[in-house]
Amino acid sequence: MDEAARIALIARILAGPARGVELGIGDDAAVLLAPPGVGRLIWTIDEQVEGVHFRRDFASWRDVGWRSFQAAASDVAAMGARPWCALCALVLPDTVDDAALEEITLGQRDAALGVGAPIVGGNLSRGTGFSIATTLLGVCERAVGRSGAKVGDGLWMAGHVGLAACGLRALTTGRGAAAAALPALAAWRRPEALVSSGLAMAESARAAIDVSDGLARDVGHLAQASGVQAVLDPSALLADAALVAAARAIGVDPLDLALYGGEDYALVAAGPAPIAGFRRIGDIREGAGLVLATEEGDIPLLVRGFDHFSR
Amino acid sequence: MDEAARIALIARILAGPARGVELGIGDDAAVLLAPPGVGRLIWTIDEQVEGVHFRRDFASWRDVGWRSFQAAASDVAAMGARPWCALCALVLPDTVDDAALEEITLGQRDAALGVGAPIVGGNLSRGTGFSIATTLLGVCERAVGRSGAKVGDGLWMAGHVGLAACGLRALTTGRGAAAAALPALAAWRRPEALVSSGLAMAESARAAIDVSDGLARDVGHLAQASGVQAVLDPSALLADAALVAAARAIGVDPLDLALYGGEDYALVAAGPAPIAGFRRIGDIREGAGLVLATEEGDIPLLVRGFDHFSR
Repeated sequence: MDEAARIALIARILAGPARGVELGIGDDAAVLLAPPGVGRLIWTIDEQVEGVHFRRDFASWRDVGWRSFQAAASDVAAMGARPWCALCALVLPDTVDDAALEEITLGQRDAALGVGAPIVGGNLSRGTGFSIATTLLGVCERAVGRSGAKVGDGLWMAGHVGLAACGLRALTTGRGAAAAALPALAAWRRPEALVSSGLAMAESARAAIDVSDGLARDVGHLAQASGVQAVLDPSALLADAALVAAARAIGVDPLDLALYGGEDYALVAAGPAPIAGFRRIGDIREGAGLVLATEEGDIPLLVRGFDHFSR
Repeated sequence: MDEAARIALIARILAGPARGVELGIGDDAAVLLAPPGVGRLIWTIDEQVEGVHFRRDFASWRDVGWRSFQAAASDVAAMGARPWCALCALVLPDTVDDAALEEITLGQRDAALGVGAPIVGGNLSRGTGFSIATTLLGVCERAVGRSGAKVGDGLWMAGHVGLAACGLRALTTGRGAAAAALPALAAWRRPEALVSSGLAMAESARAAIDVSDGLARDVGHLAQASGVQAVLDPSALLADAALVAAARAIGVDPLDLALYGGEDYALVAAGPAPIAGFRRIGDIREGAGLVLATEEGDIPLLVRGFDHFSR
């Protein structure tokens, strides 16, 4: 199909009601009417690149579309905002045929429906490397950034950490057939942005982040931005039965996965009060950096995790 | 530099005042306060891919950053809107070192300053192919789409068409040293989104488009979306002295360049009245498609131009 036919295919799959969208796919730009009384717009862009964020032998095209959308939506959830609508820019090499494009778009559409943010425009380009850039707008009354954590706050988490990394490890080591690994495979292939948790958190959280590059790295960023020390409780991280079972099935350390595995899109919030759907995983103290509070005492953790340009 | 250092470099270059931006680079998403009384948000994404939209031996890294930003801003201008702010997602292969990243960011910054839309966030990823995705928000009272042209309207154009394609041809044929080709080289390397023209047009234009894929293709899209026929006057297109001189210098047909060359980011509007800064290049008639009105009669034109997926 030529470009116009491909855009028509995408527009057909993505057609549907879109609140506040006056003009969608097919013009130079989308035209939006901001919902009345909205305080703030939340705006993010994320890009998923073949060979970096996914391998085609580990995920279906539909998974690829789904994952790319959820990764971007998670950034909106992490600000305590409600996703509103999205644009997607695809770079398509010759290896992505029309059937693959349809599957990718269906995966994006499914994710957009789940998140509640329709795709209202985008861009198509050919290229040698396949990538999907997704930009989302969200709305909220008050945004929860990374920098507001205060000494004495609890650290609260919704969702899993380490499970998606366990799924990826199961795939790369060929141990994905173990029954206990199946939730881990699903976590990697079909992550979900925790939109409801983000909205629940927005009422009391002083700072928040989504875990895309690993808990240690992302909570380290929150602590750094807030000028505080974050303390993680390993027993709380190991209370995740699905993670422990999956890690055991493929023979890796669940705590290592929980601390350094990314792409689950858990939400971590710092705040003074418990949050519905969140469990306590640690505390905020005076100081700097990140420590693991063990029975033998505190262990300082390096703020490491996935870095695109580390050597 | 690792990812954090690269983000810090970018943030330092892009720092500056940004109206309505509560939280910029460095969090999960940008936080925006829509300017009071704004009717509509205009939202676009564009992506420039090495080997497709530019060749590194034809443009400096700073040109590459500049061009990518202007291409996206042009879509906002084509809706008759004022660019507000932007996010940029870069995929960086190993060939893009820190010095190159700095130059790219400076090019983006210069363009953002010129357009009046600061870059307030983005994303970095490694990858095998270099690309820049730019998403822009703009604001306007009334958006000018592609579909409103009416029979009897004039077709009005601001900016050049064909000049950028002439510059690219000069580079690919090694004839870029001719003095008459210099404006063409500049047009390809340093295009400018016609923001002021877009705002001027918004008062009376019924439909508009920016010329990114060639006049024939883009005006064809406008005619199709509006359900009318567009008539182009070749003498008006050939009244561009810079184009004619540059085309002569490299031995190509200026009319062919004007009809099928893209990336100048001229604005074409359909409307009942002359627009300041625009010249008449044709008319809107009953019918369909695109014709060239010559002394020997009307010549139907194929709505062709740059297509990412045509064979």
